[in-house]
Amino acid sequence: MKINGNFLNLKDSYLFSTVAKKIKEFQSANPGVKVYRLGIGDVTLPLVPAVIEAMHKAVDEMGRKETFRGYGPEQGHDFLRDAIANYYADKKVKISSDEIFISDGAKSDLGNILDILDPSDKVLIPDPVYPAYVDTNIMAGRKIDTALGNQANSFKPMPDENYKADIIYICSPNNPTGSVYNYEELKAWVDYANRQKALIIFDCAYEAFVGDESLPTSIFQIEGARTCAIEFCSFSKTAGFTGTRCGYTVVPQELVFDGVKVNSLWNRRQCTKFNGVPYIVQRGAEAVFSKEGNRQIRENIAYYKENARIIHEALEKKGIWHIGGVNSPYIWLKCPDGMTSWEYFDHLLTKAHVVGTPGAGFGEMGEGYFRLTAFGDRETTQEAVKRILEFS
Amino acid sequence: MKINGNFLNLKDSYLFSTVAKKIKEFQSANPGVKVYRLGIGDVTLPLVPAVIEAMHKAVDEMGRKETFRGYGPEQGHDFLRDAIANYYADKKVKISSDEIFISDGAKSDLGNILDILDPSDKVLIPDPVYPAYVDTNIMAGRKIDTALGNQANSFKPMPDENYKADIIYICSPNNPTGSVYNYEELKAWVDYANRQKALIIFDCAYEAFVGDESLPTSIFQIEGARTCAIEFCSFSKTAGFTGTRCGYTVVPQELVFDGVKVNSLWNRRQCTKFNGVPYIVQRGAEAVFSKEGNRQIRENIAYYKENARIIHEALEKKGIWHIGGVNSPYIWLKCPDGMTSWEYFDHLLTKAHVVGTPGAGFGEMGEGYFRLTAFGDRETTQEAVKRILEFS
Repeated sequence: MKINGNFLNLKDSYLFSTVAKKIKEFQSANPGVKVYRLGIGDVTLPLVPAVIEAMHKAVDEMGRKETFRGYGPEQGHDFLRDAIANYYADKKVKISSDEIFISDGAKSDLGNILDILDPSDKVLIPDPVYPAYVDTNIMAGRKIDTALGNQANSFKPMPDENYKADIIYICSPNNPTGSVYNYEELKAWVDYANRQKALIIFDCAYEAFVGDESLPTSIFQIEGARTCAIEFCSFSKTAGFTGTRCGYTVVPQELVFDGVKVNSLWNRRQCTKFNGVPYIVQRGAEAVFSKEGNRQIRENIAYYKENARIIHEALEKKGIWHIGGVNSPYIWLKCPDGMTSWEYFDHLLTKAHVVGTPGAGFGEMGEGYFRLTAFGDRETTQEAVKRILEFS
Repeated sequence: MKINGNFLNLKDSYLFSTVAKKIKEFQSANPGVKVYRLGIGDVTLPLVPAVIEAMHKAVDEMGRKETFRGYGPEQGHDFLRDAIANYYADKKVKISSDEIFISDGAKSDLGNILDILDPSDKVLIPDPVYPAYVDTNIMAGRKIDTALGNQANSFKPMPDENYKADIIYICSPNNPTGSVYNYEELKAWVDYANRQKALIIFDCAYEAFVGDESLPTSIFQIEGARTCAIEFCSFSKTAGFTGTRCGYTVVPQELVFDGVKVNSLWNRRQCTKFNGVPYIVQRGAEAVFSKEGNRQIRENIAYYKENARIIHEALEKKGIWHIGGVNSPYIWLKCPDGMTSWEYFDHLLTKAHVVGTPGAGFGEMGEGYFRLTAFGDRETTQEAVKRILEFS
């Protein structure tokens, strides 16, 4: 038997393990010194009361014969698909329930979607970027090119008509840079994809952080997207579901390649290799769209965004170049004094006792940059910011 | 962009949709006539109190900042991996926690495991069988051969030394036939796989139904399995988790192909394309292994097995050839009077008002056979059996 040899082309990912190791070493050498973490990509606020209440109710249902639920539809329960369709309707985007597939998170579907695409497809991925886009395509043996982000384009690379792509990744609001494409920019990508007969993989996991109404929160707000894009969404950052696991993937009926409906292909993939999301979790996710649930998650998002504002304001005051932190939980900054990403990491850790994430971990174009996140406590964020100002 | 053309080689699965259509037509034509369903592959008893209690507790934890859980390990929480390792230890099988990967169900992992294997690997799949083994390999473009089950081998095909396989599927207790390999038979497969340097994909989803202590309930009870097998387990039928979604996959550290540890490959796959099972669900699964939880799930399994015994006894009395139904929730019978699977389906539906599953839906060798399941109500099962006796 042969293993999939493409796995041997993967680089080991040392980013977060190296971060953890360096913190541990620092703490061993400096016992009792408090470390302020702004590197964390995970939420810290608990699930909101409406979600908790809905899940308790669902657990009770599962314990009684009359209300017990066995296998659900692989695509998700109608109550949740309908709630999501209504959420899109509120954004003036018409998505039908049969275009919505409930997932156990955007990460799973962003990887699994590649099952239905040909290994010969050529992939265009931005740099810097969430590393899983690259790794999942290396596993499938696809050729990868990068769309380079830099200060000149505010880390929002634009299409190059001379380049022929088959699969295009876009993440907006972006992880790690926090940059957000506007309508015109996204329209340029959609038009380019339609001309090239390419597929856009649109990672929409941070859409709930967009407060500026002039910015799109779904690729389907762009004319023409229904013939070229799949959108991947998540309750992880929107509603604190990182440990509860639920997301959704939108595959329009008009999306057709080689004469085949992608919606049918994805449906077949999911029915064969997936068995749906836990009923209890789907009831929790449904509660996110209730009036009370929505008000509660908006409060949590506002809390994180206030953290982002505090970081943003401090960097502004200090004159450190940065983007993000307004319509995004991520702040992306240029390391001061020409430091590399890891030099700045060491500097902040040892001098300010603050932890962030080296930009070099997100791709070559991330070298010399640094990511801070807004998912911490208010007190931690305030103290960390004070220390960054003092020691940068 | 090109789609994965292998998907076009999939046959549409009409089995359960045709069953549903025929029932609907019968009921329209015969309003008020009650239909007794023994075709269902889903559990009907609710989750046991110990699981419900554990999940309520976990939901509460998720609602408080001090006990909230964000991203968990992709491989699963230690508390559950350790509980499963202990479950194996009770069977006198040494499995370490780092060989156990918590999944959202055996179906997902049985499909996703193919990611780490080469598309050129030649696959040996029993016939009749759970259709997903075939479909997931067609999607990946692999060459498939079948190991034929029939009455002569009690639907337990054995290895053929002249045939060279790379990947071998075994499901024991079997779906749909209910047959169970004994130690000697499984040893023959393990020895064959080791000689051929092949991988055994061992689907162990029904192991909890084995009551006969002379039969194996894990492939790792067989000497030599640690160098050739991966085992896929599920809480679905064991503890009624079909709508709650949890399973586990055991990948031994000694499993090495092309000089690469399969455990590391699978770990990399899961870390890149999966984000773990909901914390709440993992706490529910942990409770299955508590003293009280185990007693409760055993009661439910005994209830289903009594249904199986009732069906088994009736077929015995009527002299209808059948297997399964003793160490399995499935009963596999030969359609009487030379009827085809679908003829017998129609006969039972229209005459006895009983629904089962045509064996032909599980592969060519299933033609002329029929599957009944023990997952129904006691009353439904008793009445259905009475009617089968009367009209067969």
